[in-house]
Amino acid sequence: MTAPIARLCIIGVGLIGGSLALAARRQGLVKHIVGCGRVREHLETARRLGVIDEASLDPAVAVAGADMVVLAVPLGAMYPVLAAIKGHLEPDAVLTDVGSAKASVVADAQRVFGELPAGFVPGHPIAGTEKSGVEAAFAELYENRCVILTPLPSSASWAVERLTALWQGVGAEVVSMSPRHHDEVLAATSHLPHVLAFALVDTLGRMQERAEIFKYAAGGFRDFTRIASSDPDVWRDICLANGEAMLAALDKYKAELESLTEAIRRKDRQAIELILRRAKSIRDHYVIN
Amino acid sequence: MTAPIARLCIIGVGLIGGSLALAARRQGLVKHIVGCGRVREHLETARRLGVIDEASLDPAVAVAGADMVVLAVPLGAMYPVLAAIKGHLEPDAVLTDVGSAKASVVADAQRVFGELPAGFVPGHPIAGTEKSGVEAAFAELYENRCVILTPLPSSASWAVERLTALWQGVGAEVVSMSPRHHDEVLAATSHLPHVLAFALVDTLGRMQERAEIFKYAAGGFRDFTRIASSDPDVWRDICLANGEAMLAALDKYKAELESLTEAIRRKDRQAIELILRRAKSIRDHYVIN
Repeated sequence: MTAPIARLCIIGVGLIGGSLALAARRQGLVKHIVGCGRVREHLETARRLGVIDEASLDPAVAVAGADMVVLAVPLGAMYPVLAAIKGHLEPDAVLTDVGSAKASVVADAQRVFGELPAGFVPGHPIAGTEKSGVEAAFAELYENRCVILTPLPSSASWAVERLTALWQGVGAEVVSMSPRHHDEVLAATSHLPHVLAFALVDTLGRMQERAEIFKYAAGGFRDFTRIASSDPDVWRDICLANGEAMLAALDKYKAELESLTEAIRRKDRQAIELILRRAKSIRDHYVIN
Repeated sequence: MTAPIARLCIIGVGLIGGSLALAARRQGLVKHIVGCGRVREHLETARRLGVIDEASLDPAVAVAGADMVVLAVPLGAMYPVLAAIKGHLEPDAVLTDVGSAKASVVADAQRVFGELPAGFVPGHPIAGTEKSGVEAAFAELYENRCVILTPLPSSASWAVERLTALWQGVGAEVVSMSPRHHDEVLAATSHLPHVLAFALVDTLGRMQERAEIFKYAAGGFRDFTRIASSDPDVWRDICLANGEAMLAALDKYKAELESLTEAIRRKDRQAIELILRRAKSIRDHYVIN
Protein backbone atom coordinates (compact mmCIF):
# COMPACT_ATOMS: atom_id res chain seq x y z
CA MET A 1 0.00 0.00 0.00
CA THR A 2 1.24 3.45 -0.94
CA ALA A 3 0.45 6.27 1.47
CA PRO A 4 -2.47 8.47 0.38
CA ILE A 5 -1.67 11.64 -1.55
CA ALA A 6 -1.66 14.52 0.94
CA ARG A 7 -2.16 17.26 -1.63
CA LEU A 8 -3.15 16.48 -5.22
CA CYS A 9 -2.88 19.34 -7.68
CA ILE A 10 -4.92 19.07 -10.87
CA ILE A 11 -4.13 21.69 -13.48
CA GLY A 12 -7.03 21.76 -15.92
CA VAL A 13 -10.19 20.59 -14.16
CA GLY A 14 -12.29 19.32 -17.06
CA LEU A 15 -13.64 15.90 -17.99
CA ILE A 16 -10.31 14.12 -17.61
CA GLY A 17 -8.81 15.99 -14.65
CA GLY A 18 -12.15 16.29 -12.88
CA SER A 19 -12.92 12.59 -13.23
CA LEU A 20 -9.53 11.66 -11.79
CA ALA A 21 -10.17 13.97 -8.82
CA LEU A 22 -13.63 12.49 -8.21
CA ALA A 23 -12.35 8.93 -8.47
CA ALA A 24 -9.29 9.47 -6.28
CA ARG A 25 -11.42 11.05 -3.59
CA ARG A 26 -14.04 8.34 -3.69
CA GLN A 27 -11.34 5.67 -3.33
CA GLY A 28 -9.77 7.46 -0.37
CA LEU A 29 -6.52 7.94 -2.26
CA VAL A 30 -6.18 11.65 -1.54
CA LYS A 31 -6.65 14.04 1.38
CA HIS A 32 -6.84 17.44 -0.30
CA ILE A 33 -7.32 18.46 -3.93
CA VAL A 34 -6.20 21.77 -5.41
CA GLY A 35 -7.64 22.67 -8.80
CA CYS A 36 -6.02 25.15 -11.13
CA GLY A 37 -7.39 26.67 -14.31
CA ARG A 38 -7.70 29.88 -16.28
CA VAL A 39 -11.42 30.50 -15.79
CA ARG A 40 -12.57 31.37 -12.29
CA GLU A 41 -16.19 30.27 -12.88
CA HIS A 42 -15.12 26.83 -14.06
CA LEU A 43 -13.08 26.36 -10.90
CA GLU A 44 -16.02 27.57 -8.82
CA THR A 45 -18.22 24.98 -10.53
CA ALA A 46 -15.61 22.33 -9.78
CA ARG A 47 -15.58 23.33 -6.11
CA ARG A 48 -19.35 23.42 -5.92
CA LEU A 49 -19.54 19.93 -7.47
CA GLY A 50 -17.10 18.65 -4.83
CA VAL A 51 -14.46 17.85 -7.43
CA ILE A 52 -11.81 20.06 -5.80
CA ASP A 53 -11.32 21.50 -2.30
CA GLU A 54 -9.39 24.59 -3.26
CA ALA A 55 -8.98 26.64 -6.41
CA SER A 56 -6.18 28.74 -7.82
CA LEU A 57 -5.69 30.63 -11.07
CA ASP A 58 -1.90 30.51 -10.68
CA PRO A 59 -0.14 27.22 -11.47
CA ALA A 60 2.93 28.27 -9.42
CA VAL A 61 0.75 28.72 -6.33
CA ALA A 62 -1.31 25.60 -7.02
CA VAL A 63 1.66 23.23 -7.14
CA ALA A 64 3.28 24.54 -3.93
CA GLY A 65 3.18 21.80 -1.31
CA ALA A 66 1.59 19.25 -3.66
CA ASP A 67 3.02 15.72 -3.65
CA MET A 68 1.26 14.85 -6.93
CA VAL A 69 0.73 17.23 -9.84
CA VAL A 70 -1.40 16.22 -12.82
CA LEU A 71 -1.43 18.35 -15.97
CA ALA A 72 -4.81 17.84 -17.60
CA VAL A 73 -4.69 20.71 -20.08
CA PRO A 74 -4.76 20.53 -23.90
CA LEU A 75 -1.36 19.67 -25.38
CA GLY A 76 -0.81 23.24 -26.58
CA ALA A 77 -0.98 24.47 -22.98
CA MET A 78 1.63 22.04 -21.64
CA TYR A 79 4.62 24.26 -22.39
CA PRO A 80 3.30 27.45 -20.75
CA VAL A 81 2.04 25.53 -17.73
CA LEU A 82 5.35 23.71 -17.30
CA ALA A 83 7.16 27.04 -17.60
CA ALA A 84 4.87 28.53 -14.94
CA ILE A 85 5.42 25.75 -12.40
CA LYS A 86 9.20 25.48 -12.90
CA GLY A 87 10.95 26.25 -9.61
CA HIS A 88 7.73 25.85 -7.60
CA LEU A 89 7.42 22.05 -7.55
CA GLU A 90 8.29 20.16 -4.38
CA PRO A 91 11.49 18.14 -4.95
CA ASP A 92 9.70 14.87 -4.21
CA ALA A 93 6.50 15.67 -6.12
CA VAL A 94 5.29 13.33 -8.82
CA LEU A 95 4.61 15.30 -12.00
CA THR A 96 2.49 13.71 -14.72
CA ASP A 97 0.13 14.63 -17.51
CA VAL A 98 -2.78 13.07 -19.38
CA GLY A 99 -1.97 14.28 -22.89
CA SER A 100 -2.98 12.20 -25.92
CA ALA A 101 0.52 12.53 -27.39
CA LYS A 102 3.63 11.88 -25.35
CA ALA A 103 6.74 12.85 -27.33
CA SER A 104 5.57 16.46 -27.55
CA VAL A 105 5.04 16.69 -23.78
CA VAL A 106 8.51 15.25 -23.16
CA ALA A 107 9.99 17.78 -25.61
CA ASP A 108 8.11 20.62 -23.87
CA ALA A 109 9.42 19.47 -20.48
CA GLN A 110 12.98 19.26 -21.80
CA ARG A 111 12.72 22.79 -23.17
CA VAL A 112 11.47 24.07 -19.84
CA PHE A 113 13.54 22.08 -17.33
CA GLY A 114 16.68 21.14 -19.24
CA GLU A 115 17.41 18.27 -16.87
CA LEU A 116 14.07 16.53 -16.27
CA PRO A 117 12.76 16.21 -12.67
CA ALA A 118 13.05 12.66 -11.26
CA GLY A 119 9.34 12.86 -10.38
CA PHE A 120 8.25 13.43 -13.99
CA VAL A 121 6.40 10.46 -15.51
CA PRO A 122 4.28 11.23 -18.60
CA GLY A 123 0.98 9.37 -18.89
CA HIS A 124 -2.18 8.97 -20.92
CA PRO A 125 -5.45 7.43 -19.73
CA ILE A 126 -7.22 5.82 -22.70
CA ALA A 127 -10.60 7.06 -21.63
CA GLY A 128 -12.92 9.93 -22.35
CA THR A 129 -16.18 10.82 -23.98
CA GLU A 130 -17.07 13.33 -26.69
CA LYS A 131 -18.14 15.69 -23.89
CA SER A 132 -15.87 18.16 -22.15
CA GLY A 133 -15.82 20.36 -19.05
CA VAL A 134 -16.02 19.52 -15.36
CA GLU A 135 -19.80 19.02 -15.52
CA ALA A 136 -19.12 15.96 -17.68
CA ALA A 137 -16.68 14.47 -15.14
CA PHE A 138 -17.61 11.23 -13.36
CA ALA A 139 -15.77 8.99 -10.92
CA GLU A 140 -16.15 5.79 -12.96
CA LEU A 141 -14.44 7.08 -16.10
CA TYR A 142 -11.24 5.11 -15.55
CA GLU A 143 -12.69 1.82 -14.33
CA ASN A 144 -11.36 -1.04 -16.46
CA ARG A 145 -9.64 1.40 -18.81
CA CYS A 146 -6.00 1.36 -19.84
CA VAL A 147 -3.58 4.01 -18.68
CA ILE A 148 -0.33 4.17 -20.62
CA LEU A 149 2.69 5.51 -18.74
CA THR A 150 5.82 6.42 -20.65
CA PRO A 151 8.53 6.59 -17.95
CA LEU A 152 11.78 8.22 -19.08
CA PRO A 153 15.39 7.33 -18.19
CA SER A 154 15.17 10.27 -15.78
CA SER A 155 12.02 8.97 -14.05
CA ALA A 156 12.57 7.71 -10.49
CA SER A 157 11.06 4.36 -9.57
CA TRP A 158 9.29 5.90 -6.56
CA ALA A 159 7.49 8.29 -8.96
CA VAL A 160 6.42 5.50 -11.29
CA GLU A 161 5.20 3.46 -8.32
CA ARG A 162 3.16 6.27 -6.78
CA LEU A 163 1.60 7.20 -10.11
CA THR A 164 0.82 3.54 -10.89
CA ALA A 165 -0.85 3.22 -7.48
CA LEU A 166 -3.04 6.25 -8.21
CA TRP A 167 -4.25 4.96 -11.56
CA GLN A 168 -4.73 1.41 -10.34
CA GLY A 169 -6.54 2.81 -7.33
CA VAL A 170 -9.17 4.42 -9.59
CA GLY A 171 -9.71 1.14 -11.39
CA ALA A 172 -7.40 1.38 -14.39
CA GLU A 173 -4.94 -1.11 -15.85
CA VAL A 174 -1.49 0.49 -16.12
CA VAL A 175 0.90 -0.37 -18.96
CA SER A 176 4.27 1.07 -19.94
CA MET A 177 5.79 1.89 -23.29
CA SER A 178 8.07 4.47 -24.91
CA PRO A 179 6.62 7.89 -25.82
CA ARG A 180 7.32 7.25 -29.52
CA HIS A 181 5.58 3.88 -29.52
CA HIS A 182 2.62 5.36 -27.65
CA ASP A 183 2.32 8.08 -30.26
CA GLU A 184 2.33 5.60 -33.14
CA VAL A 185 -0.27 3.32 -31.56
CA LEU A 186 -2.57 6.19 -30.60
CA ALA A 187 -2.22 7.81 -34.02
CA ALA A 188 -3.69 4.63 -35.51
CA THR A 189 -6.32 3.81 -32.96
CA SER A 190 -7.56 7.21 -31.83
CA HIS A 191 -6.15 10.18 -33.75
CA LEU A 192 -6.81 8.75 -37.21
CA PRO A 193 -10.49 7.88 -36.51
CA HIS A 194 -11.07 11.34 -35.03
CA VAL A 195 -9.60 13.03 -38.09
CA LEU A 196 -11.71 10.82 -40.38
CA ALA A 197 -14.89 11.62 -38.45
CA PHE A 198 -14.25 15.37 -38.34
CA ALA A 199 -13.55 15.29 -42.10
CA LEU A 200 -16.73 13.33 -42.84
CA VAL A 201 -19.04 15.63 -40.88
CA ASP A 202 -17.42 18.68 -42.42
CA THR A 203 -17.75 17.20 -45.92
CA LEU A 204 -21.47 16.57 -45.45
CA GLY A 205 -21.94 19.88 -43.69
CA ARG A 206 -20.59 21.69 -46.73
CA MET A 207 -23.07 20.00 -49.07
CA GLN A 208 -26.03 22.12 -50.11
CA GLU A 209 -28.60 19.53 -49.06
CA ARG A 210 -27.05 19.19 -45.61
CA ALA A 211 -30.27 19.53 -43.61
CA GLU A 212 -31.82 16.76 -45.69
CA ILE A 213 -28.71 14.60 -45.52
CA PHE A 214 -28.61 14.68 -41.73
CA LYS A 215 -32.35 13.99 -41.57
CA TYR A 216 -31.75 10.58 -43.13
CA ALA A 217 -28.77 9.72 -40.96
CA ALA A 218 -29.48 6.60 -38.91
CA GLY A 219 -27.94 5.05 -35.81
CA GLY A 220 -24.80 3.92 -37.61
CA PHE A 221 -24.05 7.48 -38.64
CA ARG A 222 -24.70 8.80 -35.14
CA ASP A 223 -22.21 6.33 -33.67
CA PHE A 224 -19.70 6.81 -36.46
CA THR A 225 -19.61 10.57 -36.04
CA ARG A 226 -19.91 10.83 -32.26
CA ILE A 227 -16.19 11.58 -31.90
CA ALA A 228 -16.60 14.55 -34.25
CA SER A 229 -18.37 16.27 -31.33
CA SER A 230 -15.13 16.17 -29.34
CA ASP A 231 -13.46 19.36 -28.13
CA PRO A 232 -11.88 21.06 -31.19
CA ASP A 233 -9.20 22.77 -29.06
CA VAL A 234 -8.00 19.46 -27.67
CA TRP A 235 -7.98 17.88 -31.12
CA ARG A 236 -6.32 20.80 -32.89
CA ASP A 237 -3.50 20.46 -30.37
CA ILE A 238 -3.27 16.69 -30.92
CA CYS A 239 -3.02 17.28 -34.69
CA LEU A 240 -0.20 19.75 -34.06
CA ALA A 241 1.58 17.65 -31.41
CA ASN A 242 1.40 14.22 -33.04
CA GLY A 243 1.35 15.26 -36.67
CA GLU A 244 4.20 13.02 -37.80
CA ALA A 245 2.67 9.76 -36.54
CA MET A 246 -0.77 10.86 -37.75
CA LEU A 247 0.52 11.57 -41.25
CA ALA A 248 2.06 8.09 -41.39
CA ALA A 249 -1.27 6.53 -40.35
CA LEU A 250 -3.16 8.78 -42.79
CA ASP A 251 -0.90 7.66 -45.64
CA LYS A 252 -1.72 4.02 -44.98
CA TYR A 253 -5.40 4.81 -44.67
CA LYS A 254 -5.53 6.80 -47.88
CA ALA A 255 -3.83 3.99 -49.80
CA GLU A 256 -6.44 1.55 -48.47
CA LEU A 257 -9.31 3.91 -49.27
CA GLU A 258 -7.89 4.33 -52.77
CA SER A 259 -7.87 0.53 -53.27
CA LEU A 260 -11.47 0.28 -52.16
CA THR A 261 -12.47 3.25 -54.33
CA GLU A 262 -10.77 1.67 -57.31
CA ALA A 263 -12.52 -1.63 -56.65
CA ILE A 264 -15.88 0.20 -56.57
CA ARG A 265 -15.00 2.04 -59.80
CA ARG A 266 -14.08 -1.25 -61.53
CA LYS A 267 -17.17 -2.95 -60.01
CA ASP A 268 -14.71 -5.58 -58.81
CA ARG A 269 -16.90 -7.86 -56.76
CA GLN A 270 -14.05 -10.00 -55.39
CA ALA A 271 -11.82 -7.08 -54.42
CA ILE A 272 -14.66 -5.25 -52.62
CA GLU A 273 -15.73 -8.40 -50.82
CA LEU A 274 -12.17 -9.20 -49.71
CA ILE A 275 -11.76 -5.84 -47.96
CA LEU A 276 -15.22 -5.87 -46.37
CA ARG A 277 -14.96 -9.47 -45.13
CA ARG A 278 -11.47 -8.92 -43.74
CA ALA A 279 -12.59 -5.75 -41.93
CA LYS A 280 -15.66 -7.39 -40.42
CA SER A 281 -13.73 -10.42 -39.22
CA ILE A 282 -11.01 -8.24 -37.69
CA ARG A 283 -13.50 -6.04 -35.90
CA ASP A 284 -15.61 -8.95 -34.66
CA HIS A 285 -12.41 -10.58 -33.37
CA TYR A 286 -10.74 -7.62 -31.68
CA VAL A 287 -13.43 -5.14 -30.66
CA ILE A 288 -16.09 -5.83 -28.09
CA ASN A 289 -19.34 -3.95 -28.69
CA MET B 1 -58.01 2.67 -42.17
CA THR B 2 -56.64 0.32 -44.78
CA ALA B 3 -57.80 -3.31 -44.57
CA PRO B 4 -55.25 -5.65 -42.98
CA ILE B 5 -52.91 -7.54 -45.28
CA ALA B 6 -54.36 -11.03 -45.80
CA ARG B 7 -51.16 -12.65 -46.91
CA LEU B 8 -47.79 -10.91 -46.51
CA CYS B 9 -44.87 -12.49 -48.34
CA ILE B 10 -41.39 -11.63 -47.11
CA ILE B 11 -38.58 -12.80 -49.35
CA GLY B 12 -35.39 -12.75 -47.28
CA VAL B 13 -36.26 -13.21 -43.62
CA GLY B 14 -33.29 -11.57 -41.89
CA LEU B 15 -32.93 -8.56 -39.62
CA ILE B 16 -34.87 -6.20 -41.91
CA GLY B 17 -37.52 -8.55 -43.30
CA GLY B 18 -37.94 -10.36 -39.99
CA SER B 19 -38.37 -7.15 -38.02
CA LEU B 20 -41.05 -5.94 -40.43
CA ALA B 21 -42.89 -9.25 -40.04
CA LEU B 22 -42.71 -9.09 -36.23
CA ALA B 23 -43.87 -5.47 -36.15
CA ALA B 24 -46.70 -5.94 -38.65
CA ARG B 25 -48.02 -8.91 -36.70
CA ARG B 26 -47.80 -7.15 -33.35
CA GLN B 27 -49.74 -4.18 -34.76
CA GLY B 28 -52.45 -6.45 -36.18
CA LEU B 29 -51.66 -5.30 -39.72
CA VAL B 30 -51.43 -8.78 -41.20
CA LYS B 31 -53.25 -12.12 -41.01
CA HIS B 32 -50.75 -14.58 -42.44
CA ILE B 33 -47.03 -14.28 -43.18
CA VAL B 34 -45.17 -16.40 -45.73
CA GLY B 35 -41.39 -16.34 -45.51
CA CYS B 36 -39.15 -17.25 -48.38
CA GLY B 37 -35.38 -17.82 -48.40
CA ARG B 38 -32.64 -20.05 -49.72
CA VAL B 39 -31.68 -21.78 -46.46
CA ARG B 40 -34.24 -24.16 -44.98
CA GLU B 41 -32.81 -23.94 -41.44
CA HIS B 42 -33.03 -20.15 -41.40
CA LEU B 43 -36.69 -20.33 -42.37
CA GLU B 44 -37.27 -22.98 -39.70
CA THR B 45 -35.70 -20.63 -37.15
CA ALA B 46 -37.97 -17.83 -38.37
CA ARG B 47 -41.03 -20.04 -37.96
CA ARG B 48 -39.92 -21.23 -34.53
CA LEU B 49 -39.42 -17.60 -33.43
CA GLY B 50 -42.96 -16.77 -34.60
CA VAL B 51 -41.68 -14.38 -37.26
CA ILE B 52 -43.43 -16.23 -40.12
CA ASP B 53 -46.36 -18.66 -40.31
CA GLU B 54 -45.29 -20.55 -43.39
CA ALA B 55 -42.03 -21.11 -45.22
CA SER B 56 -41.10 -21.71 -48.84
CA LEU B 57 -37.81 -22.07 -50.68
CA ASP B 58 -39.44 -21.09 -53.97
CA PRO B 59 -40.22 -17.39 -54.55
CA ALA B 60 -42.80 -18.25 -57.25
CA VAL B 61 -44.75 -20.37 -54.76
CA ALA B 62 -44.29 -17.90 -51.90
CA VAL B 63 -45.80 -14.92 -53.75
CA ALA B 64 -48.88 -16.83 -54.99
CA GLY B 65 -51.98 -15.38 -53.34
CA ALA B 66 -50.00 -12.66 -51.48
CA ASP B 67 -51.45 -9.14 -51.49
CA MET B 68 -48.15 -7.64 -50.29
CA VAL B 69 -44.68 -8.85 -51.31
CA VAL B 70 -41.56 -7.44 -49.67
CA LEU B 71 -38.13 -8.19 -51.13
CA ALA B 72 -35.67 -8.06 -48.24
CA VAL B 73 -32.69 -9.67 -49.94
CA PRO B 74 -29.27 -8.13 -50.66
CA LEU B 75 -29.28 -5.90 -53.74
CA GLY B 76 -27.41 -8.50 -55.79
CA ALA B 77 -30.29 -10.97 -55.29
CA MET B 78 -33.02 -8.58 -56.49
CA TYR B 79 -32.70 -9.48 -60.16
CA PRO B 80 -32.89 -13.27 -59.78
CA VAL B 81 -35.74 -13.02 -57.26
CA LEU B 82 -37.72 -10.65 -59.50
CA ALA B 83 -37.13 -13.01 -62.43
CA ALA B 84 -38.37 -15.92 -60.30
CA ILE B 85 -41.62 -14.24 -59.23
CA LYS B 86 -42.48 -12.79 -62.67
CA GLY B 87 -45.81 -14.21 -63.81
CA HIS B 88 -46.69 -15.46 -60.31
CA LEU B 89 -47.65 -12.18 -58.62
CA GLU B 90 -51.34 -11.42 -58.03
CA PRO B 91 -52.39 -8.52 -60.31
CA ASP B 92 -53.37 -6.36 -57.34
CA ALA B 93 -50.38 -7.25 -55.16
CA VAL B 94 -48.17 -4.50 -53.80
CA LEU B 95 -44.53 -5.28 -54.59
CA THR B 96 -41.80 -3.45 -52.71
CA ASP B 97 -38.25 -3.88 -51.52
CA VAL B 98 -36.03 -2.60 -48.72
CA GLY B 99 -32.80 -2.18 -50.68
CA SER B 100 -30.28 0.51 -49.67
CA ALA B 101 -30.01 1.70 -53.28
CA LYS B 102 -33.06 2.38 -55.41
CA ALA B 103 -32.03 3.07 -59.01
CA SER B 104 -30.46 -0.38 -59.32
CA VAL B 105 -33.64 -2.10 -58.10
CA VAL B 106 -35.73 -0.11 -60.56
CA ALA B 107 -33.31 -1.07 -63.35
CA ASP B 108 -33.50 -4.74 -62.31
CA ALA B 109 -37.31 -4.61 -62.35
CA GLN B 110 -37.34 -2.97 -65.78
CA ARG B 111 -35.04 -5.68 -67.14
CA VAL B 112 -37.32 -8.38 -65.73
CA PHE B 113 -40.79 -6.95 -66.33
CA GLY B 114 -40.37 -4.59 -69.26
CA GLU B 115 -43.53 -2.69 -68.34
CA LEU B 116 -43.45 -2.28 -64.56
CA PRO B 117 -46.36 -3.65 -62.48
CA ALA B 118 -48.69 -0.93 -61.12
CA GLY B 119 -48.22 -2.42 -57.65
CA PHE B 120 -44.44 -1.92 -57.66
CA VAL B 121 -43.25 0.79 -55.23
CA PRO B 122 -39.55 0.66 -54.28
CA GLY B 123 -38.71 1.53 -50.67
CA HIS B 124 -35.95 1.78 -48.11
CA PRO B 125 -36.36 1.83 -44.33
CA ILE B 126 -33.52 3.89 -42.80
CA ALA B 127 -33.03 1.48 -39.95
CA GLY B 128 -30.84 -1.45 -39.07
CA THR B 129 -28.05 -2.53 -36.80
CA GLU B 130 -24.65 -4.02 -37.51
CA LYS B 131 -26.18 -7.44 -36.77
CA SER B 132 -27.83 -9.66 -39.34
CA GLY B 133 -30.05 -12.74 -39.50
CA VAL B 134 -33.56 -13.39 -38.21
CA GLU B 135 -32.29 -13.92 -34.65
CA ALA B 136 -31.39 -10.21 -34.62
CA ALA B 137 -34.91 -9.15 -35.73
CA PHE B 138 -37.08 -7.16 -33.30
CA ALA B 139 -40.51 -5.56 -33.62
CA GLU B 140 -39.39 -2.06 -32.55
CA LEU B 141 -36.77 -1.60 -35.27
CA TYR B 142 -38.87 0.83 -37.33
CA GLU B 143 -40.37 2.92 -34.55
CA ASN B 144 -39.66 6.60 -35.19
CA ARG B 145 -37.44 5.75 -38.14
CA CYS B 146 -37.71 7.14 -41.64
CA VAL B 147 -38.83 5.01 -44.55
CA ILE B 148 -38.12 6.45 -47.98
CA LEU B 149 -40.45 5.38 -50.79
CA THR B 150 -39.51 6.11 -54.38
CA PRO B 151 -42.79 5.72 -56.29
CA LEU B 152 -42.41 5.55 -60.06
CA PRO B 153 -44.64 7.00 -62.83
CA SER B 154 -45.95 3.44 -63.18
CA SER B 155 -46.82 3.09 -59.47
CA ALA B 156 -50.57 3.09 -58.72
CA SER B 157 -51.81 5.32 -55.93
CA TRP B 158 -53.54 2.36 -54.21
CA ALA B 159 -50.13 0.64 -54.00
CA VAL B 160 -48.42 3.69 -52.52
CA GLU B 161 -51.26 4.08 -50.01
CA ARG B 162 -51.22 0.46 -48.84
CA LEU B 163 -47.45 0.44 -48.51
CA THR B 164 -47.47 3.76 -46.65
CA ALA B 165 -50.10 2.37 -44.27
CA LEU B 166 -47.89 -0.67 -43.53
CA TRP B 167 -44.80 1.38 -42.70
CA GLN B 168 -46.73 3.97 -40.71
CA GLY B 169 -48.47 1.12 -38.93
CA VAL B 170 -45.12 -0.19 -37.63
CA GLY B 171 -44.19 3.26 -36.36
CA ALA B 172 -42.17 4.76 -39.20
CA GLU B 173 -42.34 8.17 -40.83
CA VAL B 174 -42.79 7.78 -44.59
CA VAL B 175 -41.26 10.23 -47.07
CA SER B 176 -41.07 10.21 -50.87
CA MET B 177 -38.32 11.11 -53.29
CA SER B 178 -36.90 10.01 -56.62
CA PRO B 179 -34.68 6.91 -56.77
CA ARG B 180 -31.75 9.01 -57.97
CA HIS B 181 -32.07 11.55 -55.18
CA HIS B 182 -32.40 8.75 -52.63
CA ASP B 183 -29.20 7.20 -53.91
CA GLU B 184 -27.26 10.47 -53.65
CA VAL B 185 -28.46 11.22 -50.12
CA LEU B 186 -27.80 7.69 -48.88
CA ALA B 187 -24.38 7.60 -50.54
CA ALA B 188 -23.41 10.56 -48.37
CA THR B 189 -25.07 9.66 -45.13
CA SER B 190 -24.76 5.89 -45.01
CA HIS B 191 -22.69 4.32 -47.78
CA LEU B 192 -19.73 6.68 -47.41
CA PRO B 193 -19.40 6.20 -43.63
CA HIS B 194 -19.60 2.43 -44.04
CA VAL B 195 -16.85 2.43 -46.65
CA LEU B 196 -14.68 4.67 -44.43
CA ALA B 197 -15.18 2.39 -41.42
CA PHE B 198 -14.47 -0.82 -43.35
CA ALA B 199 -11.32 0.81 -44.78
CA LEU B 200 -10.14 1.95 -41.35
CA VAL B 201 -10.54 -1.41 -39.67
CA ASP B 202 -8.85 -3.14 -42.59
CA THR B 203 -5.97 -0.63 -42.51
CA LEU B 204 -5.34 -1.25 -38.81
CA GLY B 205 -5.89 -4.98 -39.21
CA ARG B 206 -3.08 -5.13 -41.74
CA MET B 207 -0.61 -3.42 -39.40
CA GLN B 208 1.90 -5.72 -37.72
CA GLU B 209 1.08 -4.51 -34.22
CA ARG B 210 -2.64 -5.03 -34.74
CA ALA B 211 -3.30 -6.95 -31.53
CA GLU B 212 -1.67 -4.15 -29.56
CA ILE B 213 -3.42 -1.44 -31.55
CA PHE B 214 -6.86 -2.86 -30.84
CA LYS B 215 -5.97 -3.33 -27.16
CA TYR B 216 -5.68 0.44 -26.82
CA ALA B 217 -8.85 1.22 -28.72
CA ALA B 218 -11.33 3.07 -26.50
CA GLY B 219 -15.07 3.72 -26.65
CA GLY B 220 -14.77 6.24 -29.47
CA PHE B 221 -13.11 3.65 -31.66
CA ARG B 222 -15.71 1.04 -30.79
CA ASP B 223 -18.53 3.37 -31.82
CA PHE B 224 -16.69 4.63 -34.90
CA THR B 225 -16.08 1.15 -36.25
CA ARG B 226 -19.35 -0.54 -35.25
CA ILE B 227 -20.69 -0.30 -38.80
CA ALA B 228 -17.62 -2.23 -40.03
CA SER B 229 -19.21 -5.29 -38.41
CA SER B 230 -22.11 -5.05 -40.87
CA ASP B 231 -22.89 -7.88 -43.29
CA PRO B 232 -20.17 -7.86 -46.00
CA ASP B 233 -22.52 -9.44 -48.57
CA VAL B 234 -25.07 -6.67 -48.15
CA TRP B 235 -22.39 -3.99 -48.36
CA ARG B 236 -20.55 -5.51 -51.31
CA ASP B 237 -23.86 -5.36 -53.18
CA ILE B 238 -24.44 -1.75 -52.14
CA CYS B 239 -20.95 -0.83 -53.41
CA LEU B 240 -21.78 -2.49 -56.72
CA ALA B 241 -25.32 -1.10 -56.99
CA ASN B 242 -24.73 2.50 -55.93
CA GLY B 243 -21.13 2.89 -57.07
CA GLU B 244 -21.65 6.05 -59.07
CA ALA B 245 -23.17 8.09 -56.23
CA MET B 246 -20.66 6.63 -53.78
CA LEU B 247 -17.72 7.61 -55.98
CA ALA B 248 -19.03 11.19 -56.11
CA ALA B 249 -19.29 11.30 -52.32
CA LEU B 250 -15.86 9.67 -51.96
CA ASP B 251 -14.32 12.32 -54.22
CA LYS B 252 -15.64 15.09 -52.01
CA TYR B 253 -14.51 13.29 -48.89
CA LYS B 254 -11.01 12.64 -50.21
CA ALA B 255 -10.59 16.30 -51.13
CA GLU B 256 -11.60 17.30 -47.61
CA LEU B 257 -9.30 14.71 -46.04
CA GLU B 258 -6.48 15.98 -48.24
CA SER B 259 -7.06 19.56 -46.99
CA LEU B 260 -6.95 18.41 -43.40
CA THR B 261 -3.86 16.28 -44.05
CA GLU B 262 -2.12 19.25 -45.66
CA ALA B 263 -3.06 21.46 -42.72
CA ILE B 264 -1.53 18.90 -40.35
CA ARG B 265 1.59 18.66 -42.53
CA ARG B 266 1.98 22.46 -42.53
CA LYS B 267 1.16 22.58 -38.78
CA ASP B 268 -1.45 25.16 -39.77
CA ARG B 269 -3.22 25.86 -36.51
CA GLN B 270 -5.97 28.05 -38.02
CA ALA B 271 -6.79 25.69 -40.88
CA ILE B 272 -7.00 22.65 -38.59
CA GLU B 273 -9.11 24.51 -36.08
CA LEU B 274 -11.50 25.79 -38.75
CA ILE B 275 -12.32 22.27 -39.97
CA LEU B 276 -12.63 20.77 -36.49
CA ARG B 277 -14.83 23.58 -35.14
CA ARG B 278 -17.08 23.53 -38.17
CA ALA B 279 -17.49 19.75 -37.93
CA LYS B 280 -18.29 19.84 -34.22
CA SER B 281 -20.84 22.61 -34.59
CA ILE B 282 -22.52 20.85 -37.51
CA ARG B 283 -22.73 17.56 -35.67
CA ASP B 284 -23.93 19.13 -32.43
CA HIS B 285 -26.60 20.96 -34.43
CA TYR B 286 -27.87 18.17 -36.66
CA VAL B 287 -27.25 14.87 -34.92
CA ILE B 288 -28.88 13.81 -31.68
CA ASN B 289 -26.75 11.48 -29.58
